[in-house]
Amino acid sequence: MRTATGADGEAVTRQVVNRLRRVEGQVRGITRMVEEDAYCIDVLTQVSAASRALQGVALILLDDHMQHCLTEASRAGGAIQADKVREASQAIARLVQS
Amino acid sequence: MRTATGADGEAVTRQVVNRLRRVEGQVRGITRMVEEDAYCIDVLTQVSAASRALQGVALILLDDHMQHCLTEASRAGGAIQADKVREASQAIARLVQS
Amino acid sequence: MRTATGADGEAVTRQVVNRLRRVEGQVRGITRMVEEDAYCIDVLTQVSAASRALQGVALILLDDHMQHCLTEASRAGGAIQADKVREASQAIARLVQS
Amino acid sequence: MRTATGADGEAVTRQVVNRLRRVEGQVRGITRMVEEDAYCIDVLTQVSAASRALQGVALILLDDHMQHCLTEASRAGGAIQADKVREASQAIARLVQS
Repeated sequence: MRTATGADGEAVTRQVVNRLRRVEGQVRGITRMVEEDAYCIDVLTQVSAASRALQGVALILLDDHMQHCLTEASRAGGAIQADKVREASQAIARLVQS
Repeated sequence: MRTATGADGEAVTRQVVNRLRRVEGQVRGITRMVEEDAYCIDVLTQVSAASRALQGVALILLDDHMQHCLTEASRAGGAIQADKVREASQAIARLVQS
Repeated sequence: MRTATGADGEAVTRQVVNRLRRVEGQVRGITRMVEEDAYCIDVLTQVSAASRALQGVALILLDDHMQHCLTEASRAGGAIQADKVREASQAIARLVQS
Repeated sequence: MRTATGADGEAVTRQVVNRLRRVEGQVRGITRMVEEDAYCIDVLTQVSAASRALQGVALILLDDHMQHCLTEASRAGGAIQADKVREASQAIARLVQS
């Protein structure tokens, strides 16, 4: 991700990419279950698990964003900071409501 | 899905499979965004959209489940009905908490 | 609640009322924390706890609804059943999205 | 709240307190509905509304927290900043999972 430039940033990117690939595999597995007439409740259990996994990705991204973008903006202060905080707040709101 | 045997059931299956394929594509797109250093907030927006899409799938599955499995169990009554309602409640709880 | 007429129904009502009174107390406590300048993160922790408690109430109500209203409607079948399932689906959707 | 010291901070506190009082009234209303045997789906609709209102409060608190505490910590940098971001991340995680 753009603001994660050091070795730490690369580690976060790798972790997020790995988790997203796993979610992609989970979703493909759910599609197969539906096509093969799996029992609805078992399908739902897997959908909940994939949702939770996506949420985990979102929380890692948010943490990284606050650690980097948000703290940079804080040092800039003023309108830049206010804009960045508003942007982060809206992202959190979308996440909480999703 | 197992309990959706008629033409109606096939339509639900097709709709769910289509939506799941779209979610799979969304998740793949998010992976690419992360690999290409997209801005964290833009990535988060797409993660929220994929979450909402998965939730939409879950709600269709639940509706179909109540329409078929649950109503069948209700006609059976007694322990079968109680078991099926408990099972559905637990699936809803996992969904709400995910 | 209307469809819970026996001793079992009364037990559910009592349990739900007790939990709601506790949530009301939690919310009053949060108001006091905000008025007394408590640390934002501590306030947020209590808001999350009250949210989870409300969700617990919703899950009990849904379970009771499926156990009674929905199974009654299933025995009626046809349009009555379809209407009741749609109504329950919409309530679950509102809950999942809240 | 502690970090909202100016006129702006007082406005946020007043807004949050007003919203929390409204949530308290909503919860009391739901208790009455349950005691008076209201229809489960109507009760659930009100529970979802109260949940959404609580979430709104949480989002205001988080925004204020990022605007004040988090940006202060960012100026301090180092371990203080890292600790505060972790603390905020955990609060967001609890909120998303509630």
